[in-house]
Amino acid sequence: MFRTHTCGELRLSDINKATTLSGWVQTIRKFGSITFVDLRDRYGITQLLFSESLNENLEANPLGREFVLQVHGTVNERSNKNNNIPTGEIEILVNEFSILNKSITPPFTIQDDTDGGDDLRMKYRFLDLRRQAVRKNLELRYAVGRSTRNYLHEQSFMDIETPFLIKSTPEGARDFVVPSRMNPGQFYALPQSPQTFKQLLMVSGYDRYYQIVKCFRDEDLRADRQPEFTQIDCEMAFVEQEDILNMFENLIKRIFKDVKNIDYTDKVERMTWENAMWTYGNDKPDIRFDMRLCNLKFPSHTFPGREDISSLISGVDFKVFDEAETVIAIAASNCSEYTRKQTDELTEWVKRPQIGMKGLVYVKCNADGTYKSSVDKFYNEEKLKAIAAAVNAKSGDMIFILAGAEERTRKATSELRLYLGQQLGLRRSDEFKLLWVLDFPLFEYAEDDNRWVARHHPFTSPKPSDIATMINNNPVIENAAEYLKHPYANIKANAYDMVLNGNEIGGGSIRIFQKELQQKMFAALGMDEHEQQHKFGFLLGAFEYGAPPHGGIAFGFDRLCSILGGSESIRDFIAFPKNNSGRDVMIDAPSTIDDKQFDELQIKLDLKA
Amino acid sequence: MFRTHTCGELRLSDINKATTLSGWVQTIRKFGSITFVDLRDRYGITQLLFSESLNENLEANPLGREFVLQVHGTVNERSNKNNNIPTGEIEILVNEFSILNKSITPPFTIQDDTDGGDDLRMKYRFLDLRRQAVRKNLELRYAVGRSTRNYLHEQSFMDIETPFLIKSTPEGARDFVVPSRMNPGQFYALPQSPQTFKQLLMVSGYDRYYQIVKCFRDEDLRADRQPEFTQIDCEMAFVEQEDILNMFENLIKRIFKDVKNIDYTDKVERMTWENAMWTYGNDKPDIRFDMRLCNLKFPSHTFPGREDISSLISGVDFKVFDEAETVIAIAASNCSEYTRKQTDELTEWVKRPQIGMKGLVYVKCNADGTYKSSVDKFYNEEKLKAIAAAVNAKSGDMIFILAGAEERTRKATSELRLYLGQQLGLRRSDEFKLLWVLDFPLFEYAEDDNRWVARHHPFTSPKPSDIATMINNNPVIENAAEYLKHPYANIKANAYDMVLNGNEIGGGSIRIFQKELQQKMFAALGMDEHEQQHKFGFLLGAFEYGAPPHGGIAFGFDRLCSILGGSESIRDFIAFPKNNSGRDVMIDAPSTIDDKQFDELQIKLDLKA
Repeated sequence: MFRTHTCGELRLSDINKATTLSGWVQTIRKFGSITFVDLRDRYGITQLLFSESLNENLEANPLGREFVLQVHGTVNERSNKNNNIPTGEIEILVNEFSILNKSITPPFTIQDDTDGGDDLRMKYRFLDLRRQAVRKNLELRYAVGRSTRNYLHEQSFMDIETPFLIKSTPEGARDFVVPSRMNPGQFYALPQSPQTFKQLLMVSGYDRYYQIVKCFRDEDLRADRQPEFTQIDCEMAFVEQEDILNMFENLIKRIFKDVKNIDYTDKVERMTWENAMWTYGNDKPDIRFDMRLCNLKFPSHTFPGREDISSLISGVDFKVFDEAETVIAIAASNCSEYTRKQTDELTEWVKRPQIGMKGLVYVKCNADGTYKSSVDKFYNEEKLKAIAAAVNAKSGDMIFILAGAEERTRKATSELRLYLGQQLGLRRSDEFKLLWVLDFPLFEYAEDDNRWVARHHPFTSPKPSDIATMINNNPVIENAAEYLKHPYANIKANAYDMVLNGNEIGGGSIRIFQKELQQKMFAALGMDEHEQQHKFGFLLGAFEYGAPPHGGIAFGFDRLCSILGGSESIRDFIAFPKNNSGRDVMIDAPSTIDDKQFDELQIKLDLKA
Repeated sequence: MFRTHTCGELRLSDINKATTLSGWVQTIRKFGSITFVDLRDRYGITQLLFSESLNENLEANPLGREFVLQVHGTVNERSNKNNNIPTGEIEILVNEFSILNKSITPPFTIQDDTDGGDDLRMKYRFLDLRRQAVRKNLELRYAVGRSTRNYLHEQSFMDIETPFLIKSTPEGARDFVVPSRMNPGQFYALPQSPQTFKQLLMVSGYDRYYQIVKCFRDEDLRADRQPEFTQIDCEMAFVEQEDILNMFENLIKRIFKDVKNIDYTDKVERMTWENAMWTYGNDKPDIRFDMRLCNLKFPSHTFPGREDISSLISGVDFKVFDEAETVIAIAASNCSEYTRKQTDELTEWVKRPQIGMKGLVYVKCNADGTYKSSVDKFYNEEKLKAIAAAVNAKSGDMIFILAGAEERTRKATSELRLYLGQQLGLRRSDEFKLLWVLDFPLFEYAEDDNRWVARHHPFTSPKPSDIATMINNNPVIENAAEYLKHPYANIKANAYDMVLNGNEIGGGSIRIFQKELQQKMFAALGMDEHEQQHKFGFLLGAFEYGAPPHGGIAFGFDRLCSILGGSESIRDFIAFPKNNSGRDVMIDAPSTIDDKQFDELQIKLDLKA
């Protein structure tokens, strides 16, 4: 037997017990004739005491960091207690030890605060994973998965595995494909999600399905994307949107409770997509703090029916605002005392290429009720006061105003809001705020092809009230410049995103379950009947045999874990992540394959020069 | 809300309750002016009663099989109760109904006893999955997974996801590969198992790992193989073989209890590989019944040290036995009265090409103590009596004897034993017998290449007592004809298989954890240093930094479920299986891909004529 206890287990109550421990040498400290060793395993650290009698043996068999060590000994009360660790009151008086395996010097220290850079840590991920900080992340990930499974089980969901070798039907993202040796010239695709399979399961009557499942997308990797990622994938039959929202906000609340011991008793807020864009400039707003956008000027085709307050800023011949498509203001609480240096820095920040604005207008709402702005020569005190009222700024606040093209300006204001929120300490990583964003547009306009694409995916149902609009109109866009006037531009989807602290953690929709409407949807996306049959014939076929109303949701498991762990990086929550080129630098994959493999698969390379 | 109750929920105690149900129309029966409909969902079947008042509505909206129906009504006590189903005492008096979706006539009936052949059922798998028989299988599968997770969680195992896009290192089976667009000319491989990753996790200190995970092998598919299959994959550090056997026989016992409500209190039997081959002719014996093999004649190089009893059959000039390499007998209890027709049938059975024997010798041990055999002209009563004693046959038994080349004869006797066991009702699908088979050979001889291959895999440790033999001998086989005399032929592995009712349900080993021994193993398999580094450099590297002793096991999840479900076919326990050509005939995959995909991946077809 290699051990009787783990390195995190022994306490004062175990004094005088004989014990055998196995683990890794964390540190070695020699004091005169005795040696202290901290022995580490997954469960903790226990101090070992090698007395003088073992010195000869230690000299013959010297220990080193990360050696794998087995010791037999007795539990002893420590004279010098360490209250920072649960085992800190005891130590093991070693009788006998054996080195189970040696270690050469690791390329970085196995500590929370390691000296290893990212590249080194990824190359030696097996050592990086030994660090407590990384282990805590994987433990949290396991706890989130376990909590999810328990909750869904209690709610009568069944985990049903769907296939990984499926059919390539590139719609949104690019598929990874797998050549079939047994069917030369043909390929499987790896699933971007089990979407159509879970819908088939609904047709089959498995009315509550889930899976925690790997998905694959061959996209150019941004900082925090992985070619393979994990989803909590769920689907329900005989439900309306309201049923799904209730079921899954309770899932997340349960995870909060099980994993973080947080009682999330607040009602989960809900917001339409249009309100989110209007109020936060963003479809995944961070509602841990207020600082709402005030649309001083906006294109009415994007936000029809909103009150036009542009008279507040017009008529003073301020060309920047007059010529801008959009002008948006936010008020930062208690920032009126910002120095010139601070406002200059913010101006530089919005002018960075990632933000891309030309400048930043500010209005100080002084504590004494006066106003001071960077545009005083255009706006008098009265005008500034009116603007401040519109922005809901109090005395002591600072208003920031951005102006420019619609999309860029809205995005920039949203980014500025998050940046200020961060600076002002309004985005605490231990505070969690959930939000449902609802009523997304069903379609997005694809400028390149002058056609509609599905905003969520082609299986998302329009709002019942919009079905007639969809069926009774030709999807073709006659006049590209006026696509916003096409009836399809205003069709809303029965789709919903769950947002946590400004991150989309999950999204889903009520699905189309009628063959005719699904065909209309495919057609709206530019798929002719032949293509519909080739790609999705099985689904259209299934819809002929009694498909029930259904809908579902998928959560990004990696992302959810990273937010719960208070980190920005999903990589820290994946045991063996890939880098930005899709490489696993530890195992050195992808790599070349043998001629025999090419031969069997009946493919060859066709490399561009 | 689509329903207030499921179709399996309502009971006599719910009488007079208002209820809303949704489900599928199973049957429609008209009796005069009233109509009965059985409504089905995943949870059960509830009878609906449409009274005369709804006739007009029913005529305007006729129902059909597999229509999706929603009804509002009141729970009523049935006059004509059905005790076969839990809802059989009630029916719903329908007030109002709506057809949620229609169905065309299904290509086969949605009943346990369907009229759909295999091909049709697979093409319309979404309908096949509606059948109760299939649903029960998937529910059992879910229950097995859930039980596994609960047990392993209680034992401090952590579910840790390992990557799917890894490196091609074809050793045993063929890899599926995935061209990398971002790394042109390079390929990922899909994992045949997470073997090296779980070992790295041991190096990283995650001493109890598990995963229920998809694995992939591009092999020609036999009847019951799938290109993608699921494993319960486990690994532990700081363990010896005994620890693993105890941990995982208790897992299976727990599954028996949770899923089948079986208290498996018997001690799990253990048998060496050699004893299994000697006693049952097979390394996965079905020990639900005895009928042991008696090796009347055998090659001593395969079973050194066993008692030679060939004098029992020699010296009578019976050429069939004299010229055979191997002669093996089994005794079938209480079969001495078998008719000529029956023994002829068995003779034909062993002569089938799948078994490949030339004939079958029988010896009747009559109830009166006399003997009658098909070889009476060679063996007198006394000789037959001695043979019967060796075979442990009692009066009333029938002895069957096969003779021929070693491997074929042993296999044929083993098959005959199973066939007789089946015929005699000794293999009951509701009886479960576990067995550990231990001490497998480490190597197998590969005749084609005249070299050693790993019987389990290249990471399996030899028995400690055999390590010296492995290190101190050159693996090269100088004389192919005498490979059995090479010291490597007798090296035993620290490997174990778990056998359930004659099926291997799991297998594993204690792993090599020392770099030098791992290198020696790779070299023994004919891998030079360059190839070792290219394929497994990361593992050899990891072993330099303090790898702990470790070992593990993997269970075939599909197979385990099928045996627990009393079925021979794993396909029945997979939601969306593939056929023998690796095709999913429902979605029609694999399929062709677009030119754009070839172009982006920088590969092209190279089809043989």
